[in-house]
Amino acid sequence: MNIKPLGDRVVIRRLEAEEKTKSGIVLPGTAKEQPQMAEIMAVGPGGMIDGKEVVMEVKVGDKVIFSKYAGTEVKHDGVEYTILRQNDILAIVE
Amino acid sequence: MNIKPLGDRVVIRRLEAEEKTKSGIVLPGTAKEQPQMAEIMAVGPGGMIDGKEVVMEVKVGDKVIFSKYAGTEVKHDGVEYTILRQNDILAIVE
Amino acid sequence: MNIKPLGDRVVIRRLEAEEKTKSGIVLPGTAKEQPQMAEIMAVGPGGMIDGKEVVMEVKVGDKVIFSKYAGTEVKHDGVEYTILRQNDILAIVE
Amino acid sequence: MNIKPLGDRVVIRRLEAEEKTKSGIVLPGTAKEQPQMAEIMAVGPGGMIDGKEVVMEVKVGDKVIFSKYAGTEVKHDGVEYTILRQNDILAIVE
Amino acid sequence: MNIKPLGDRVVIRRLEAEEKTKSGIVLPGTAKEQPQMAEIMAVGPGGMIDGKEVVMEVKVGDKVIFSKYAGTEVKHDGVEYTILRQNDILAIVE
Amino acid sequence: MNIKPLGDRVVIRRLEAEEKTKSGIVLPGTAKEQPQMAEIMAVGPGGMIDGKEVVMEVKVGDKVIFSKYAGTEVKHDGVEYTILRQNDILAIVE
Amino acid sequence: MNIKPLGDRVVIRRLEAEEKTKSGIVLPGTAKEQPQMAEIMAVGPGGMIDGKEVVMEVKVGDKVIFSKYAGTEVKHDGVEYTILRQNDILAIVE
Repeated sequence: MNIKPLGDRVVIRRLEAEEKTKSGIVLPGTAKEQPQMAEIMAVGPGGMIDGKEVVMEVKVGDKVIFSKYAGTEVKHDGVEYTILRQNDILAIVE
Repeated sequence: MNIKPLGDRVVIRRLEAEEKTKSGIVLPGTAKEQPQMAEIMAVGPGGMIDGKEVVMEVKVGDKVIFSKYAGTEVKHDGVEYTILRQNDILAIVE
Repeated sequence: MNIKPLGDRVVIRRLEAEEKTKSGIVLPGTAKEQPQMAEIMAVGPGGMIDGKEVVMEVKVGDKVIFSKYAGTEVKHDGVEYTILRQNDILAIVE
Repeated sequence: MNIKPLGDRVVIRRLEAEEKTKSGIVLPGTAKEQPQMAEIMAVGPGGMIDGKEVVMEVKVGDKVIFSKYAGTEVKHDGVEYTILRQNDILAIVE
Repeated sequence: MNIKPLGDRVVIRRLEAEEKTKSGIVLPGTAKEQPQMAEIMAVGPGGMIDGKEVVMEVKVGDKVIFSKYAGTEVKHDGVEYTILRQNDILAIVE
Repeated sequence: MNIKPLGDRVVIRRLEAEEKTKSGIVLPGTAKEQPQMAEIMAVGPGGMIDGKEVVMEVKVGDKVIFSKYAGTEVKHDGVEYTILRQNDILAIVE
Repeated sequence: MNIKPLGDRVVIRRLEAEEKTKSGIVLPGTAKEQPQMAEIMAVGPGGMIDGKEVVMEVKVGDKVIFSKYAGTEVKHDGVEYTILRQNDILAIVE
């Protein structure tokens, strides 16, 4: 993929319901925050973000849970991606 | 469990009323903040969070009181979990 | 008591009106902030809280004035406690 | 007085209009902030407050101007006191 | 004058229209911020304010432009003063 | 171009739909944040911005995705530019 | 000019439409932020501002683009000036 996120941002691709069923995770969501599963497609370099050292903890290929309302959607070659900050990723699903 | 929280986040499972009765704790809640009891299921690595060093003080198996409105709910293999920051945990019940 | 507060939190038990009369303190309260007297029941370890070193200045048994709207109420073995941050305690009454 | 303020807080007693007349100070107040004169009754130890070193600049007996809406009112042995942060004191009147 | 401002505060006395005419400055003001001219009457010691070193750049006698809505008005011996933070002073008029 | 941005600001020129089609990127946008593609025309020096060291990660000629609502529009010799902070640039498209 | 701005403030004089035409810059403005061109008339000393080191990047005579809603208007000898922080200046036009 040719989208290179800046700073502590990552590019993710949402996983569909079928993919979630395979790993056994279901994300019901709530009114206050609707979580989603996704795969990491690209990872920014981290470094000094707003004057604070950020180390990237996720890597390409990680399955993650993130907050649905975080980030910006981008469509590339017919696939929708989301660009968001690593801090908006809640957990890695192994 | 295969949910690995990032940073200073933890995964908790809420304890039901019967479980609370056993330990003698009752959580009435108030309009402003409804506390809940839960068990710690997974603990993030801590480290530099928003440029501040966070040491994880809770461990898997701890019974804790947390604020009901904190965190994100995730359903996994039929069990509901909540992912929240350690800072949203008020106390450990021993 | 088996509630162990995390970080800079403390567990307090409110003192009733009669107890206040004994020490001569009356807390009228105002519309903006209603103060209350309480006894410290448990004290967190302090340490790095939000990246800032917090030293605990109160100890178990201290009589304190705190802001009524601060903290979370917890009922334990028929007694109501409040968990709040040390910063929400205004003064020690000696 | 047996109220010992924590951190950078001080306990003050408001001065009445007659007392103000003696020192020649009149505080008209405005809609946005109504200043008041008071005497310092007790001074907290200062030190690290929210991760910042605070040195106490006022001492018991100082006559000060403070913002009327700051702090918490406490009644003790029939006298009303206010507990507020040193930062809410605008000036010392000598 | 016997008002001694704390921290980075200064005491100023507003200059009337006639005084402004002499120095050739007219301050029309706008809806969002109405500037005013004043003379510095007293200057606080500066030092650590909210954990930041503040050096006082104004001195007694300086003519300054400040924001009308900043600070607290105090009347002393029939003269109205304003107590405000140095940061609310925009410029010195020489 | 003779617009020299200050601090961590950059000057960008929006890319039109046709240009986007060539690189295969489509930016559908959402109600919460409408992303846009642009080319970097000028880059500020970075350095200490609000007391934090900012290193410029973009360079003139980079194609970037940025948030539509960020920045200020400027028209120069018939071309519209936008001046915005590097932090408002989400990713570089290579 | 005898207005000496404090800290990281600068004094600017707005450039009229005709002056803009000469340099080829047109500033259409938008609902969210209406940019303006101006000339720098005076520059504060910079230094520690809110506990952060600020180096002044503009100098007297610079033509700059700034945000219309920033700063305070001052009229001096029949000329209107604006006093604003360097951070509200977006770019220098060379």
